[in-house]
Amino acid sequence: MNFGRHISGQFNVELESIRTHVLTMGGLVEQQLSFAMQALHKDDVELARKVVRDDHKVNSMEVSIDEACTRIIAKRQPTAKDLRLIIAIIKTITDLERIGDVATKIAYVAIESPATQDREFNISLEPLCRQAISMLHQVLDAFARMDVDAAAHVYKLDDKIDAEYEAVIRQLMSFMADDPKNIPHILQVMWSARAIERVGDRCQNICEYIIYFVKGKDVRHLSGHQTIDDALKS
Amino acid sequence: MNFGRHISGQFNVELESIRTHVLTMGGLVEQQLSFAMQALHKDDVELARKVVRDDHKVNSMEVSIDEACTRIIAKRQPTAKDLRLIIAIIKTITDLERIGDVATKIAYVAIESPATQDREFNISLEPLCRQAISMLHQVLDAFARMDVDAAAHVYKLDDKIDAEYEAVIRQLMSFMADDPKNIPHILQVMWSARAIERVGDRCQNICEYIIYFVKGKDVRHLSGHQTIDDALKS
Repeated sequence: MNFGRHISGQFNVELESIRTHVLTMGGLVEQQLSFAMQALHKDDVELARKVVRDDHKVNSMEVSIDEACTRIIAKRQPTAKDLRLIIAIIKTITDLERIGDVATKIAYVAIESPATQDREFNISLEPLCRQAISMLHQVLDAFARMDVDAAAHVYKLDDKIDAEYEAVIRQLMSFMADDPKNIPHILQVMWSARAIERVGDRCQNICEYIIYFVKGKDVRHLSGHQTIDDALKS
Repeated sequence: MNFGRHISGQFNVELESIRTHVLTMGGLVEQQLSFAMQALHKDDVELARKVVRDDHKVNSMEVSIDEACTRIIAKRQPTAKDLRLIIAIIKTITDLERIGDVATKIAYVAIESPATQDREFNISLEPLCRQAISMLHQVLDAFARMDVDAAAHVYKLDDKIDAEYEAVIRQLMSFMADDPKNIPHILQVMWSARAIERVGDRCQNICEYIIYFVKGKDVRHLSGHQTIDDALKS
């Protein structure tokens, strides 16, 4: 992908390298989320421990990409679209790192939850988590191609995640009422559901950064009934 | 406060102006959080509605400070400490905006929760919220003076917030078990508690940005038993 011609071919190489690192980081985060979910469903404590162990990889990628961005600003003094790309990357990796934290949180639930008996509660998270992983995958794809239409499409997937989340919470609330002694464990599952629902919001943030980069337009904080499509047209 | 001498006095003026805007935004967020808490405690639906109405002010400050930061990078091509200040500001306002969202979330609970009867649950949030507001106040103070020692001190306040949060959750869990018909409302209060606890984490992020700006050192993601003091000394 060509981000405009630069006097310095080296600058292009550096920008491209940062972008590749973001995609690698995104891939790792997606894998972490997917492993955490598997660990929860299959009571695979070993896999859950791996997710916790690997969280530092996500963190150190965030730090090193951040440093690379600061270095490139200082050295190359980018303006306009190049600068927007770097700002978009700085913001994107913050969201990716937080999604990585969600994976770790779910992994801890898998480690701490007593095996067999409470699987019914854990299993209720599966469709929600699958949707979140799919949304993350699609937003990374939109990021790789810096595709505004794809970003606008992915943005809207959050509505489905919200609906699924509400259904999960309703189901878990009825489990709670049926058998109050399970409240502590069900709450753990609810916190996980909440964290997964927030993955959708973070993916929406990344969609906004893609649009900001390509269009130079800040579409955060839409007012009232304004949709992402309205914002893109206006 | 002198951020180093610049060839252009105008640059200093611009940096100072951005910094002032961040503090204004921080003050507004602190007020929003404080009003939301008051609204919840005193069943003041009017005040809660004001908090919801004013959220757009926080959002538009984030957008305009972001724009000012991008403009100053493009125009002045800052390096070293000036650049670190701008990067620190870009990250700080993201956290401030999210704290603003917490205020709105609590305000909605105040609007939706049935008045008198459930006040016992709402009231349990007061000490937690007071601690969070105090931590936010102190981190803004540390930001205003770019005071690393103050930032390291504020950073550690989060432990107290976490302990208070655990206590609130335990109390609310016992309310749930006592009377399962209250589960839906108590859950609302729990989500609020969780959101307030996250304010502490966001204040810690801002402490990290202050340290990054002053020391040029990234102290995020401390490993194992490393404390913030260890990281500052190393």
